[in-house]
This record gives sequence, C-alpha cells and structure tokens, in this order.
Amino acid sequence: MTIKDIARLCGVSVSTVSRVLNERPDVSPAVREAVLETVRKSNYVPNNSARSLVKTSSDAIGLVVRGVSNPFYSEIIKVIGREIDAAGYTLVMQQISANADEIERGAIMEREKKLRGLIFLGGRWDYSPEELGLITVPFVCCSYNNSFGSLDRESYSSVTIEDELAAERAVNELLRLGHKRIACLVAETDDRSISELRYRGYLKALREHGVEPDGALVARSGSFSMEDGYRATMELVESGSDFSAIFSISDAMAIAAIKALDDCGRSVPRDCSVIAIDGLSLSEYTRPTLTTLCQPMARMGEESVKILLDVMNGWTKSRHIVVETQFRAGASIAPPA
Amino acid sequence: MTIKDIARLCGVSVSTVSRVLNERPDVSPAVREAVLETVRKSNYVPNNSARSLVKTSSDAIGLVVRGVSNPFYSEIIKVIGREIDAAGYTLVMQQISANADEIERGAIMEREKKLRGLIFLGGRWDYSPEELGLITVPFVCCSYNNSFGSLDRESYSSVTIEDELAAERAVNELLRLGHKRIACLVAETDDRSISELRYRGYLKALREHGVEPDGALVARSGSFSMEDGYRATMELVESGSDFSAIFSISDAMAIAAIKALDDCGRSVPRDCSVIAIDGLSLSEYTRPTLTTLCQPMARMGEESVKILLDVMNGWTKSRHIVVETQFRAGASIAPPA
Repeated sequence: MTIKDIARLCGVSVSTVSRVLNERPDVSPAVREAVLETVRKSNYVPNNSARSLVKTSSDAIGLVVRGVSNPFYSEIIKVIGREIDAAGYTLVMQQISANADEIERGAIMEREKKLRGLIFLGGRWDYSPEELGLITVPFVCCSYNNSFGSLDRESYSSVTIEDELAAERAVNELLRLGHKRIACLVAETDDRSISELRYRGYLKALREHGVEPDGALVARSGSFSMEDGYRATMELVESGSDFSAIFSISDAMAIAAIKALDDCGRSVPRDCSVIAIDGLSLSEYTRPTLTTLCQPMARMGEESVKILLDVMNGWTKSRHIVVETQFRAGASIAPPA
Repeated sequence: MTIKDIARLCGVSVSTVSRVLNERPDVSPAVREAVLETVRKSNYVPNNSARSLVKTSSDAIGLVVRGVSNPFYSEIIKVIGREIDAAGYTLVMQQISANADEIERGAIMEREKKLRGLIFLGGRWDYSPEELGLITVPFVCCSYNNSFGSLDRESYSSVTIEDELAAERAVNELLRLGHKRIACLVAETDDRSISELRYRGYLKALREHGVEPDGALVARSGSFSMEDGYRATMELVESGSDFSAIFSISDAMAIAAIKALDDCGRSVPRDCSVIAIDGLSLSEYTRPTLTTLCQPMARMGEESVKILLDVMNGWTKSRHIVVETQFRAGASIAPPA
C-alpha cells in the first residue's frame, strides 16, 4: 500500500493525501477525515511515522486508572481493553488510588514496560508542562482535561464531557420542578477536579434562575467514595439545613446519599429529590431508580484509543473530543412537597 | 544468597531445604512452609528454576477476566494487579464476556504476549485435560475450580470459597428465622458453574430442615446480569407462587431482586427477605442494606498471585486454597410475616 493507493481509494490527488498526513491546514475537514479513515483501514504506514521505528521494540500501551474504586471506570476499561487488543497492541494496566500521582506512575511504566503510548483514566486537571516532561510517549487524558493547568492544547489529547454544563443541566431539572433549596454533594469545591467543575455548574444554574447559593447546602465528602458520600449527606441532614433536593456530582455518591436520607427517615423523591451525573448501569437498580445524566462511556473509551493510535502513528499531533451526556429519567426527582 | 544461607536462616539442614525445593514428601508441612517463606523473602533463585531461563524473554503474567460486568471482580483485579506489580512482573489483562472461551483466549495470550503464567478470574468448572493442553504455562483458577471436570488435581491450582457450603449457610439463616417458602434466584440449576453449586447448597439446606424443595420457587435468570436477575424475579412474583424469602446466588442479582420486589409493591424484608453471597461494598448501600456472605476478595487475589509465582518458580507443582466466607448482617432478612 503506497500513498498513490490511498489517493486512488479516496478519489483525491497524491498531494492532498500528503497534505493530510503532514497536517497542513489547507484541506477540508471532510476530505481529511476520509483520507485518515482510509489510511487507518489500509494499515498504510507513513515513512516518517514513529511506528515503523519503534514497533519492533514493544507493542505495549499503558492504562493508568486513578481512583480504582470508581465503578464508573469499569465500563470504560472494558472498551479500552477491547479496542487496544483489536488494534494489535498489548494493554498494560495499573490501578492507583485517587490521591496517587498518575504522571509519576505513567512515567515509570513508560520506561519499565517500554510503552508506545499511554491513556490516563482519571487524573489531575492542573498539569504543568514541566511535570509532563516525564512522559515522552503520546498520551490521552480520558474523562478529564487540563482546564486548570498550563499545558499547551497541542501538547496533549483528551476525551471529556462538558462537566460544568452537565451539572447545570442536572440542576436545571431540579429548578424546573420548582426546587429552590437545592443542596450539592461534592468531593470538594476547590480541588481543581471534576468536583470543582460540577460545583461551578451548580452555582451557575442557581444564579441564572435568581436563586442565591447557600453555603450551608454544600456537603463536602472529601473524596468520591460512597462511604464519604454517605457521611457527608448524614452531616448535611443533621445540620438542620432546609433543602428539598440534592444534586450529587456522581452516581455512586448519589446512591450513598439516597441511603443516608433513608436512614434519616427521608424518602426519595417524596421528601427529597436526588439527581446526579454518570449513568452507571447499576443506578438503574436503586430504589427509586436514579435520575442522572449519562456519560457515553463506551464512546469515551473508543475515542481515547482512536486518538492515541492516531498520535502514535503520527497522523495527528493531538485532539480534544467533547462528548455529550444524555438525560436518563429515573424516579428520584419530583416537585417539592 | 545460597542454599546454605537459606538453611541457616531457617535453622534447618541444607538437605532439608533441598528436599523442600525438590518437593520431596519427607518434610513436615510447618518446615516446608517456613523454608518456602524464607526462599520467597530472600529472592533466592534455585538453579533449576524456570525463572532464570525464561525471565529475560518476558515478565508478563496474563489475567483473563470472564464476565466483565461482574462488579465482584473489580476488587480482585485491583489486588491481583498490585501483587503482580510488587513482584516485578507486568500484568497483561483481557476481559471477555461470560459466554466466551477463557482457555482459548488464554492460549492466544500465552503465545502473543509470551506469558510466564496465567490467572483466570471466573471460568468453566468442567475442563478436560485435552483442552488444557493449549495452556503450557502455570495457571491459577481464581473463584472457581474443576469440580465438574476431569483435571488431575495436581495439574492446576485454584482459590475458591466452598460455594455449596456458603449457599447452605445463607439458606440456613432464612430457615432459622422461620421461613419455609424460600425461593432461589439462580443463573441456571445445571450449568456446571457457581450457580449450580450454590443451587445445590440451597437444596441441601432445605432437605436437612425437612423442607421439600418446590421447583416453582426456582427463578432462573439465564445469566448473572442484574437485568436478567430483575426479569427472573418479576416472573417469579407474577407466577403467583407463594414465598416469603429469596436466596440469591449473587449480590448483584439480589440488588436487582430487591428492585423487582419493590416494583411489585413488596417491601424487603417486611414482605420478603433477601439474602445473597458475595459481599460487594456496594451492597452496603442498598435499601435495606443487603445481608450477605462476604467472599474475602483481597485475600483471593493475593493467594492467586502467590500460588502462581510459587508454581512459576518451581517451588510447588500446584496448590488449592479454600477461603472462608464471612456473614455480614444487613437489614434485608426478617422473620416471615
């Protein structure tokens, strides 16, 4: 397969294929995508690609999963594994705790396992270029990006939802039903993570509806665990603050919140509505079924692998993909009593 | 470190150490364990060990996870990953669906990834020696064994609970409370799997208490998924059969069963008790908290890796470990109304 074959298959000129492969801007997006798709399918290897140089040494792609107890990751891991396998690479996975350093772990893996590329599933949102110097292979941030950091957008890739917007949508559902006293269950409000972003969306939704945020209604769990989510909800109830709904930043924490409310004698949604973001298949079996905004987990895994392979193959320098959440109606929200 | 050092550290003769390393029977179990423990800690490598011959070619250990959506596996995978990493090997994981062929997948992995050893997490209970011929590296069956198959016990290793006994214990809890009409939620009753074994324990408990099993009270879901567990419970309720309790073969299916009962207007445990086996951390957050027999997941992962390393290093030919379940009282069982 030569560059001429690719051009013929796509019905474009050789110079067009060349412009696409060299990332020149003077190609329409549709043609670019068609050429890249053909290149992918044909296993055409550009001469200057890193692939031909390195391929013999290792076929390992690393996956660092940060926050191992997060059930949200299970589905994504499955898809990433399947896609890496289908592409003929070997997945080498390491799971680390939510407060461990994924960059250091990734850098060690890169050297020890001779990685060709890396996917980080969960991580900090505030990398500096200096830190990232440890990582010399292509990498993709899955489920987070660098919105609190100082990386050049071209120096990394990411697949995310719009966390702030998703939170806003969730809180809007509660406001639409007539709730005004809406509590927010977060890990922290200022941890430069998904928690802070979703908290911002909560604040934004309230303000846009003329509802003044009340700090007493913010329950900080300190982590993303169900255990801490349960405890924080208990403390919120015991504080005596008046609220008719909870927006939880994650499904898992919402499940714990429903349990805590029940243990305090409050029925969901009669005494308190609960809405979240994630869309675990599990949360279809809570009582009541959780109303939540679903992240497209399979697609997030697929896109992460696709981007990584494209960067590894030299077909693109970086790419940022934003995927949409989808509202899943459960039975955990209702108008205030 | 020489064999003399090992002997001195253990306070035994050199010939005793030699007998242990060569798996001679004339050593007491206590001495054998002490010598092996010292050998492990000292990184002593026997001359004839496969390790020194193969170590240079690959440090990969494969993990084939069968039944990817099973939340029970998440904790075990985490521990297996940690232990393999700590031992200086590289974990290569592949997740396959519950009806895929783990032996074929493992055999392909063995060749493609030049594996040193394999752990199967979940799999069929009825292997034949012929099938296993595809696997030429040491392997451990985690969470299952070969009780329906024809393997020589020395030709494989396993880490399991006593599934039949655990089921018996669970059903005994219901009988003790006075239940007689106890339903059983299984995948299948004759699938030569964990489901059949746990079903047997259910039958045994009933018969030992003089309760005649009633086929109408057996709900077959056809799989281990929550979706199918939900459907099977719905069908059981709709069948009109009279029952005051359900024994579910897994936590995940029990969570789905509680949901189904609730959707039919039956409250747990007031209208129906539910008990299960597994002990997911998640099922501490069901409403009501699930009463279940917990498998020691961390220990199962640790033991699997330990056995595999011992077999890989030539310190033992095979080992079978049976671990105990622990009763975790929730609030999902009560005396019949």
